[in-house]
Amino acid sequence: MTTDRLEGYRARIQAELDQVVAYWLKHSHDKVYGGFFTCLAKDGKIYDELKYVWLQGRQVWMYCRLYRTMDRFHLPEILEAAKSGGEFLRRFAWVPSAGSTGKCAFCLTRDGQPVKVQRTIFSECFYVMAMDELSRVTGDEEMQAHAESVMDQLVHWVRVDPSGLGQPQLSGDRPVNSMAVPMMLLCLVEQLGEGRPGVAEKYSEVGSWCVQQILQHVQRDGNAILENVSTDGKELPGCQGRLQNPGHALEAGWFLLQYAAGRGDQELKKVAVDKFLELSFKAGWDPEHGGLLYFLDADGHCPTQLEWSMKLWWPHCEALVAFLMAYSQTKEPGLLDRFTQVYDYTFSHFPDAEHGEWFGYLDRRGSVELNFKGGPFKGFFHVPRCLFLCEKLLDALLAETRSS
Amino acid sequence: MTTDRLEGYRARIQAELDQVVAYWLKHSHDKVYGGFFTCLAKDGKIYDELKYVWLQGRQVWMYCRLYRTMDRFHLPEILEAAKSGGEFLRRFAWVPSAGSTGKCAFCLTRDGQPVKVQRTIFSECFYVMAMDELSRVTGDEEMQAHAESVMDQLVHWVRVDPSGLGQPQLSGDRPVNSMAVPMMLLCLVEQLGEGRPGVAEKYSEVGSWCVQQILQHVQRDGNAILENVSTDGKELPGCQGRLQNPGHALEAGWFLLQYAAGRGDQELKKVAVDKFLELSFKAGWDPEHGGLLYFLDADGHCPTQLEWSMKLWWPHCEALVAFLMAYSQTKEPGLLDRFTQVYDYTFSHFPDAEHGEWFGYLDRRGSVELNFKGGPFKGFFHVPRCLFLCEKLLDALLAETRSS
Repeated sequence: MTTDRLEGYRARIQAELDQVVAYWLKHSHDKVYGGFFTCLAKDGKIYDELKYVWLQGRQVWMYCRLYRTMDRFHLPEILEAAKSGGEFLRRFAWVPSAGSTGKCAFCLTRDGQPVKVQRTIFSECFYVMAMDELSRVTGDEEMQAHAESVMDQLVHWVRVDPSGLGQPQLSGDRPVNSMAVPMMLLCLVEQLGEGRPGVAEKYSEVGSWCVQQILQHVQRDGNAILENVSTDGKELPGCQGRLQNPGHALEAGWFLLQYAAGRGDQELKKVAVDKFLELSFKAGWDPEHGGLLYFLDADGHCPTQLEWSMKLWWPHCEALVAFLMAYSQTKEPGLLDRFTQVYDYTFSHFPDAEHGEWFGYLDRRGSVELNFKGGPFKGFFHVPRCLFLCEKLLDALLAETRSS
Repeated sequence: MTTDRLEGYRARIQAELDQVVAYWLKHSHDKVYGGFFTCLAKDGKIYDELKYVWLQGRQVWMYCRLYRTMDRFHLPEILEAAKSGGEFLRRFAWVPSAGSTGKCAFCLTRDGQPVKVQRTIFSECFYVMAMDELSRVTGDEEMQAHAESVMDQLVHWVRVDPSGLGQPQLSGDRPVNSMAVPMMLLCLVEQLGEGRPGVAEKYSEVGSWCVQQILQHVQRDGNAILENVSTDGKELPGCQGRLQNPGHALEAGWFLLQYAAGRGDQELKKVAVDKFLELSFKAGWDPEHGGLLYFLDADGHCPTQLEWSMKLWWPHCEALVAFLMAYSQTKEPGLLDRFTQVYDYTFSHFPDAEHGEWFGYLDRRGSVELNFKGGPFKGFFHVPRCLFLCEKLLDALLAETRSS
């Protein structure tokens, strides 16, 4: 019975992944300047030529990961596209005059001129993900060393001195532990250390620091996951302190599950499931219309984010990975039921049967409100990463079933 | 017949203005630190104590304008609140270390510590509005001179050298004529020059420059108002270039109407009505659910702003002022019909009969989606300014009717 369910999910997920990869191979490559167009309309037409560095880096990473770990995507076309994106990033992403020692741009023109630089770490994070994964398929050791040196800069900004990011120091702007920061660094620690014991050892302490920083977001006697806390792990005042982002907490949950599995840490696995998955799901699931709300306020005030009640694709992607990974680690049937609940909503609302790929932005009631497939924040990343990870998890689960 | 309609509007608008003023007098004053709370829930409860400088300045301005020009608001309570807000701003708004020569903060803690500084001109603009209007009710000449000196700094940043704002110069970031900038400066030119021929003369050239800059946003052979154009008045590529913000264009329309009326400029009046009002209304009015959409793309692509299809209070406020002002200047019945259409939508959707004040954010279908009355961008400004201006316009129209 369970096997049939899992087989059904796998068939659909495989087919979706094929379709999504085909969509981006067909529509997103810039054959003139290199790199990727990501502002793609419903039917794949390019409606803006700007190149967002987060999305360039993520697409390089995803192509390489598929090329490296899935036989049916081990294709020259995918490798060439990843290399083209990597070259574009190395040539154009860095803005030497930004911050105090140079920064990656947030956004570039089609031909690589910097348009905007953010005073955060995320462009550099996706740059590192891209370079490390690309170096694994090309065997380029210099590129791998480069990725590590940018990682060291990131750790310095986060843990030693943020002044290089270019943010002015203001007396009312208290330092915040924003969940995105330790999540991203933990993701990079896992990326860089995969299959390389020396590198894993080098970043081992950073990894456990990240886990501790993420765990600080369990607040209110273990009853809420809050997106922003003080650097000493206390709740912050006001909207910032009460903000909840269930999709983000679910993503943090599967990062922790992965980390815990790698180390056989049962206690951490339990916190990931009970807190990051269950609490976030209960807080975020819309009882009226289904789907995960984007933002919430832990005291039930209305969030000030205009899009708080929209249903975005990526929290659903993260929830699918989180619940399937939790099920595969625990075999708790309730976790497979959660997966099913998210799966049913996701596959009945986001995929576009006509042109392929997924819509990204639904209103509270579940109608498509923004009908493009790619935009400044939606690229070739959350959908294929989710489908890729779920397919791998289902493969392993089905293999276990057959051998038992 | 028309008189009855106008009488009906005036009665409702007067009553709304009284209720809105009462709401902010009751809930928003910080009696401990001075200034105003603006994050006010549906029932007036404070859900965040941060003080946004735009909203502090706007509330000071609005209180002073009501105190100075409407007998029923010439109350010591209103004057004292305005002075408290003005003192708070003078003491705390400036961050000497921001930009290259100091800037106003965007956001302060309750006790006035700076939290965030934007690299734009708007905090300073609302600061000038506040100081100039406050100096008119208090007779404080030093404050008036201070407002003028900040205005001179603003003109320098916009027309001579923006480097003091602290934005890095990036090769892909071409200078943009964003409609907000000349609109704000024109608003300040009118503010500073009111009843002061010497000051009006000093800023006369700036005013006509602003008008020309605003007119550059009429694009596509006069068939579209675009929010961002190049500094030589051409359409920009991509989403940025195609962006339309109908509420903003309607606001620009009444700024132009007011400017044209002050100078008897019939040609400008016609452009304001035919282009900024009519084109924006036709582009922005939702044929299916009514109300004005927030953002549009001139080629019909889906905007990338997640909130593009929401119905916000302020575009409706600006549309009411624009069409009533245009009607009062032209007596074209079609413009009064437009006013009526916006009036009917606005008064049936935004006011909260239970707790007073207006909701600010509806979904596309017109349901309240964010239920607070004040937030980081909604303070005591668009609603009372609209009601105040409409009441004044209706007074004058009804006086004309009676005397004819």
